Amino acid sequence: MRLLDRITSPADVRRLSGRQATALAAEIRDFLVAQVSRTGGHLGPNLGVVELTIAIHRVFRSPEDTVVFDTGHQAYVHKLLTGRTDFSALRRRGGLSGYPSRAESEHDVVENSHASTSLSWADGIAKANVLQGRADRSVVAVIGDGALTGGMAWEALNNIAAGHDRRLVIVVNDNGRSYAPTIGGLAEHLSLLRATQGYEHVLDWGKRTLRRSGPPGRFAYDALHGLKKGIKDVVAPQGLFEDLGLKYVGPVDGHDVTAVERALRRARDFGGPVIVHVLTEKGRGYSPAEQDVADRFHAVGQIHPETGLPVAPSRFGWTSVFADEIVRIGRRRSDVVAITAAMLQPVGLAPFAEEFPDRVFDVGIAEQHAATSAAGMAFAGLHPVVAVYATFLNRAYDQVLLDVALHRAGVTFVLDRAGLTGDDGASHNGMWDMALLASVPGLRLAAPRDEETLRSALREAVDVDDAPTVVRYPKGALGDPLPALESLDGVDVLARHEGPDDAPAVLVVGLGSMARTALAAAEALAAHGLRVTVADPRWVLPVPAALTKLVGEHDHVVTIEDGLVDGGAGSVVAQRAREAGLPTPVQNLGVPRAFLDHATRDQLLDELRLRPEDVTRDVLAALGRTR
Amino acid sequence: MRLLDRITSPADVRRLSGRQATALAAEIRDFLVAQVSRTGGHLGPNLGVVELTIAIHRVFRSPEDTVVFDTGHQAYVHKLLTGRTDFSALRRRGGLSGYPSRAESEHDVVENSHASTSLSWADGIAKANVLQGRADRSVVAVIGDGALTGGMAWEALNNIAAGHDRRLVIVVNDNGRSYAPTIGGLAEHLSLLRATQGYEHVLDWGKRTLRRSGPPGRFAYDALHGLKKGIKDVVAPQGLFEDLGLKYVGPVDGHDVTAVERALRRARDFGGPVIVHVLTEKGRGYSPAEQDVADRFHAVGQIHPETGLPVAPSRFGWTSVFADEIVRIGRRRSDVVAITAAMLQPVGLAPFAEEFPDRVFDVGIAEQHAATSAAGMAFAGLHPVVAVYATFLNRAYDQVLLDVALHRAGVTFVLDRAGLTGDDGASHNGMWDMALLASVPGLRLAAPRDEETLRSALREAVDVDDAPTVVRYPKGALGDPLPALESLDGVDVLARHEGPDDAPAVLVVGLGSMARTALAAAEALAAHGLRVTVADPRWVLPVPAALTKLVGEHDHVVTIEDGLVDGGAGSVVAQRAREAGLPTPVQNLGVPRAFLDHATRDQLLDELRLRPEDVTRDVLAALGRTR
Repeated sequence: MRLLDRITSPADVRRLSGRQATALAAEIRDFLVAQVSRTGGHLGPNLGVVELTIAIHRVFRSPEDTVVFDTGHQAYVHKLLTGRTDFSALRRRGGLSGYPSRAESEHDVVENSHASTSLSWADGIAKANVLQGRADRSVVAVIGDGALTGGMAWEALNNIAAGHDRRLVIVVNDNGRSYAPTIGGLAEHLSLLRATQGYEHVLDWGKRTLRRSGPPGRFAYDALHGLKKGIKDVVAPQGLFEDLGLKYVGPVDGHDVTAVERALRRARDFGGPVIVHVLTEKGRGYSPAEQDVADRFHAVGQIHPETGLPVAPSRFGWTSVFADEIVRIGRRRSDVVAITAAMLQPVGLAPFAEEFPDRVFDVGIAEQHAATSAAGMAFAGLHPVVAVYATFLNRAYDQVLLDVALHRAGVTFVLDRAGLTGDDGASHNGMWDMALLASVPGLRLAAPRDEETLRSALREAVDVDDAPTVVRYPKGALGDPLPALESLDGVDVLARHEGPDDAPAVLVVGLGSMARTALAAAEALAAHGLRVTVADPRWVLPVPAALTKLVGEHDHVVTIEDGLVDGGAGSVVAQRAREAGLPTPVQNLGVPRAFLDHATRDQLLDELRLRPEDVTRDVLAALGRTR
Repeated sequence: MRLLDRITSPADVRRLSGRQATALAAEIRDFLVAQVSRTGGHLGPNLGVVELTIAIHRVFRSPEDTVVFDTGHQAYVHKLLTGRTDFSALRRRGGLSGYPSRAESEHDVVENSHASTSLSWADGIAKANVLQGRADRSVVAVIGDGALTGGMAWEALNNIAAGHDRRLVIVVNDNGRSYAPTIGGLAEHLSLLRATQGYEHVLDWGKRTLRRSGPPGRFAYDALHGLKKGIKDVVAPQGLFEDLGLKYVGPVDGHDVTAVERALRRARDFGGPVIVHVLTEKGRGYSPAEQDVADRFHAVGQIHPETGLPVAPSRFGWTSVFADEIVRIGRRRSDVVAITAAMLQPVGLAPFAEEFPDRVFDVGIAEQHAATSAAGMAFAGLHPVVAVYATFLNRAYDQVLLDVALHRAGVTFVLDRAGLTGDDGASHNGMWDMALLASVPGLRLAAPRDEETLRSALREAVDVDDAPTVVRYPKGALGDPLPALESLDGVDVLARHEGPDDAPAVLVVGLGSMARTALAAAEALAAHGLRVTVADPRWVLPVPAALTKLVGEHDHVVTIEDGLVDGGAGSVVAQRAREAGLPTPVQNLGVPRAFLDHATRDQLLDELRLRPEDVTRDVLAALGRTR
């Protein structure tokens, strides 16, 4: 019987001997490769935290002690150790979430998959513990070195450092590359600290014994710590964490369960905030991942477990088109530069970086800085293209508004994975972008429907030098081209279905990838005897005057978007029509104000009634033509 | 003739002798007290940066060298030195802006009044300078110690540190209190550095001479710097800035023009990123400010210049009601805690902090951390009340969405200065809150119209433990009570004007402070023979079913809000009505998608046609009853 089969809760993990704990790590690694190769998922990050997660559950007692995982995609081992062993439907509807989930377990606390939040969560929980007489409980935040580059982490560190009486352990999971190799001053500092590995072994604090002698133990610890600091100044640079007033333990070998446990015990028993610096290797123990220099198998689809090769060849998708077109633009325009927030590969900037290494800036997981430094570059004569996943732009709303738009900076934001993404769960859906950006004065947003409109939108966007432009497109594969029948002042007409003169004239507006849905729904509506026009404004915000004019020429309008319906692009179309005094009813279809559980995009569209047949039914109902 | 009268541009400042520069500082201080006491404005911060600003313009050549002021409210001296001496209409329509303004001067770059942005701007400009062959130009960012607690500043520091070849000088204007005394680990670190004042005087680098010897100068500097570091370790803690890889100069006496100039020259000539740590006193040289321990005259209205006492007694306003009610709630509910982002006094939390010192958390200028640590506290059993100015919540949109709302955390956000604020200019208007928050699933938002509805909204908000709640109210004085005639399932009916049965029935929905406008407009509409109902939903988001029902009972509906009309609360009322299949036209009045120049709130309402007579006219026009 495998050790893993005996683990139903953290208490079982604590009962293992040190040797068994190490053996368990090997079993878990095999399990992860076997399972995740079948379903896809964040394989590399989880292979890196096997021993670390075991050690955490041996030293701390979840859920009384709270364990918070930053970014959340490295919680697979935690799931296994807290009794969730059925990975067969990982990230699929009804199966385990790819992130912590409160619905799954009392051991899961933070579901947010955006980076750098864990320290703030931990600070809040630790403050509440003290106020509510539970000061003996520990709060553990596990955060990658990359996530430390995010501004929130700094805000939290600054506050945590001020809370001398709060039991808060920050585990810095330092693999030198939370997504990609970590950059910047912090990365250089961490790598200096890393260079002193082995230092911990030299020193034996005998700290626990001293602590046990009662309240003065704290002073004894401090005295010892002072000594340690004295020694450390000789062998290592004094850490910025200590400058902030945070105790620092490390670096420690993150693949040695016993060493990690020892460090965590010290941190736990100190009684105040402590940073434990743990060195790990992303993809550890799985050679295809270890050999993948660029990405370390950060997130994979289905793969062959032996080779690590994808089961299905990746299809030519939206990201590839962007990757290609931005290089072409770069050749023609030396002022065009690219900015990424630690996601050079995933957003398709690798070819641009290859050809123009001086003109690409990876700012770390720092969307706020990405936006505002872009405003600075635009001020000084460049045209920056900031490429991020749509969901992450939410982090920089204020900067897009007040640094970019207020200053009329010519900055282009390229939003990949806009709309419903599905399998990464609620916080990865890019469904807020249009509702959010509709509030930004001067901003122009394009939602291309196919390869050609993506290419042309990009070219048009980088030509705008006095306002922010946004080009947003979905995750995944491109469909066939959807050519326009004609263009009316920039609004593409994709189809016209004639009908009897007395039949109601319906305008179906499909935004971005929903143009396909619009076309299919229009055919069905035409079959019901309606006159139907299908339009795609391409540039959705601000609403083109030509679109409002089209609205006025129809008896009924329906807009379809794969983003939030409240305040979304369709709602602005309706507002412009009302302001123009048009009587035409404008029906908005889109995503309701709700968080969506993980599922495929198609399952979500089905559930949200955004399939062509749903549109057809809703329009017929609005026209009183229900069968 | 005053020296000040001879200054028309920075070149004039550079021509002054050192003694004259010091004399100029005294003149400017007199000028500021005399002028700002008449108009109101950010007196304290500007009195603190007189010598610093003079020194900057003597060492750097704006606009070729770029000077960026963080937060922007301390740019009065900069305005004076760049030829803007008419302060008679400061912060009034047609007069000087209280912040940098590109429309005013080529020396102004960043207009955003939100904190912590300057380093990102500077990083972007410096990167562009290098790429475009202007690597010899310097970029100077002036940032307060408080603004360094903001996450963006960290993101930028991390990137700046990586740019060894970029001429970027970060002036840390350390007054220990950018708004209020700075808190947290960073503050403690800065105060340690401060304790070593005088250290600069000991050391004479002779650096400039070495630099002039050619390219190897850089190495000579580094060697010397290494020496300096060696000495410094003896007398001062090694700085976290240096751990990040940033050179550090200081601390230097910010009220000694010559000393500041010397430090800035060293920084300028180094050729890479350098931090210059300048110690200043907010309110320096004006004894009423120096004696104001809590606030140092951060921002004042009209005051008597001799005494510093306000000309008009401050009226009992919205903030005072909140201040009072939250204390009452705190007495009754020990689980209610308060969070502020460096604005304890301005948001009205001082009385709460006085009575419950353990239950108030000032997190620094760190709205992201405020929101997410609140989610953590709610998870652990508290009910946090996060009190911020409405405009600053934009910084934490992603955290409100994915940490608070996704986790159904019972957190109450209190938004002061919501809607049009006016005199602080475009970026201080709290006009985005409702449009933004309408996109957050589960969130409930109240816009109270008077004292009683503010108190009741707060009490109701802290009773919600499974969703974020928001209570938003405007800047300034409270009007008279506006009692309800009746309440229909939570929707208050404020007035009913009867009329002929065949007259159209109009529903006027006044949101928050616009309830007064609604009442006045309703009277005028009734005088035109219409039947009119005035309703205030109090809880605006989600749209109460009772309000949608009311919509259906009328022939025409107009909503009035002092926030963004696109995607605003009124637009959601319209969407719900359409979804309910109601034929009633819903007209939305509010703020257009534009940035508004500084003016009074009344001037803006006038300009935006949001006065009662505008509403009356617009409704009559929509009904085809134009005279």
